[in-house]
Amino acid sequence: MNVNGQHYRTIWLNADGWAVDIIDQTKFPHQFETVTLRTPGDAAVAIKDMLVRGAPLIGVTAAYGMALAMRQDGSDGALSAAYDLLVKTRPTAINLKWALDEMTRALTPLPAGQRSAAAYVRAAEIAEEDVAINQAIGRHGFSIIEDIARHKKPGETINILTHCNAGWLATVDWGTATAPLYTAHDAGFPIHVWVDETRPRNQGASLTAWELLHHGVAHTVIPDNTGGHLMQHGLVDMAIVGTDRTTAQGDVCNKIGTYLKALAAHDNGVPFYVALPSPTIDFTVLDGVKEIPIEQRGGHEVSHMTGRTEDGRIETVEITPRGSKVANYAFDVTPARYVTGLITERGVIAANRAEIAKAFPERATQ
Amino acid sequence: MNVNGQHYRTIWLNADGWAVDIIDQTKFPHQFETVTLRTPGDAAVAIKDMLVRGAPLIGVTAAYGMALAMRQDGSDGALSAAYDLLVKTRPTAINLKWALDEMTRALTPLPAGQRSAAAYVRAAEIAEEDVAINQAIGRHGFSIIEDIARHKKPGETINILTHCNAGWLATVDWGTATAPLYTAHDAGFPIHVWVDETRPRNQGASLTAWELLHHGVAHTVIPDNTGGHLMQHGLVDMAIVGTDRTTAQGDVCNKIGTYLKALAAHDNGVPFYVALPSPTIDFTVLDGVKEIPIEQRGGHEVSHMTGRTEDGRIETVEITPRGSKVANYAFDVTPARYVTGLITERGVIAANRAEIAKAFPERATQ
Repeated sequence: MNVNGQHYRTIWLNADGWAVDIIDQTKFPHQFETVTLRTPGDAAVAIKDMLVRGAPLIGVTAAYGMALAMRQDGSDGALSAAYDLLVKTRPTAINLKWALDEMTRALTPLPAGQRSAAAYVRAAEIAEEDVAINQAIGRHGFSIIEDIARHKKPGETINILTHCNAGWLATVDWGTATAPLYTAHDAGFPIHVWVDETRPRNQGASLTAWELLHHGVAHTVIPDNTGGHLMQHGLVDMAIVGTDRTTAQGDVCNKIGTYLKALAAHDNGVPFYVALPSPTIDFTVLDGVKEIPIEQRGGHEVSHMTGRTEDGRIETVEITPRGSKVANYAFDVTPARYVTGLITERGVIAANRAEIAKAFPERATQ
Repeated sequence: MNVNGQHYRTIWLNADGWAVDIIDQTKFPHQFETVTLRTPGDAAVAIKDMLVRGAPLIGVTAAYGMALAMRQDGSDGALSAAYDLLVKTRPTAINLKWALDEMTRALTPLPAGQRSAAAYVRAAEIAEEDVAINQAIGRHGFSIIEDIARHKKPGETINILTHCNAGWLATVDWGTATAPLYTAHDAGFPIHVWVDETRPRNQGASLTAWELLHHGVAHTVIPDNTGGHLMQHGLVDMAIVGTDRTTAQGDVCNKIGTYLKALAAHDNGVPFYVALPSPTIDFTVLDGVKEIPIEQRGGHEVSHMTGRTEDGRIETVEITPRGSKVANYAFDVTPARYVTGLITERGVIAANRAEIAKAFPERATQ
């Protein structure tokens, strides 16, 4: 999407034809910087330190990490070493393992000398598939927004709440939860987005707000505590979030706090949708609350906050008392019963085992 | 309660016998400073700028503000001018208006020359009544904790979640929601408190954590997004919050985000209690969601964050992109159906109109 009037993707081949460029998302929203990855180790650090984040972008970055590895050494040992290095960078995102398995499947049958070229081709395909999936999610989600608009006065604002960043910065382009928003906005619909700031890492305040600002979409940043109140007062027409992993029965693992918004939506009759690219479905898991391990990250993300001082310096400040413990659970699971629908690249489907299997029979039969 | 081993209240008469000392709570958790109020204007600024906050402490500060006014000028004009000045400092807290009405009722019948002395007496009584109420809430809430402990193994931790600061810093002493916690802790019960950081003003991270740390109560600060996940996994035995205003039917107006925690507690069978000093009950209101006006505060509280840098400076940083709008709703309303019980100074009662009226018949018949 647009940055300072110029079109960008989140990951692309460097002008040298083999290195991989990304946007350093840890500098948002105050600085826009790109970084060049030259080794699988660079790719692993970029994922682990969250220079790139968002399940689909993590997957594509890992795929290119395999390509960077194969360029150095196409041996079986290098292939499995790169897999092992990259797969452990983030424990929750299913796309990471999916992309690495895809790459392994494509490369293993080939002789070592052909693996580098094939790896770049397959990584590029995975990137293009992500863009195509998100455009399809955008179209299907847009039809929900059109339907909401039909029940409003002409020109009346359509208020949509989102949590975290399932925007184009989390994917290669378009985003998952934001694709319907950009599609509706580009079609001239008067949408306004309530952006949960999304503590502790503030992906809403620093990424989603930045995206929407650059694309010209009306939006308001709110503390994560606010959504329930807005829903009680009819100020939210629809909630839409992304997901890091959705189970075969439709339980949705997403950024911590998603579950609380789903409960509020349910209590107030607000439709709660999940934008779900199908690689994010984990058919090996049914009960998300019981079965999905939740990543715990360092307490520093909770106890400290980084931002820009009045005179333009980037500064980190401590906000808890010295001596107080902190905890940092990164995700939670929203049970399927609170999900109005899953917006997939094949259409909007109900969040239950039968519907998901019907939509993706080739994977559900595993 | 204790600060650096010394006992403090949050408001007390200065050594000069007439000025009023408070703790400047805007400096928490990094600095402990006291401030002296000498005029009703000082008291109004202390309330408006949140040097003092929490419904009970706001009420007592307003009462002393009336005393400071009467010391300057005991006329009817000065009385009503002080009332008008103080009543508009915070729109939501019912205790503010209650305390000012109490003072007016006590002072109006008196000749101007007697009003100053009477005002100091009545303000001190209101402060002592608050302490007595909170001690009673502590006893009644402690019995709930004892009951939870009876269903656990001996010595097993009792996990209690709280939101915002309904601690002693929000009252004169003991706190409302914290009174049962301090009572249980002092009785040797192994409690551990999950402290919601409570964006945007971070009263949990900066006040509740600081209080518990100084009193030696085990606690962990968490982002506001976290409570639902903890409840899903059996890591919360009870939630307890304060309230700024509770209606005659038991709808609870409290810091924004309280409603979301109540929904999560309900969804997971976790008891959700509200510590409710009876002056906080507003018998003129029934439906809290429909009838209580919700204060909107400046966006700066959302877009900026203040804390301590590594080298000890207090610095404010901006965390949203320039150009993004922010919204700052200060409170929300939790419908009575999600409240397990109201812990009042007269015992634990159900959150419904009949039970509240039965417990406080002298006020309910208004």
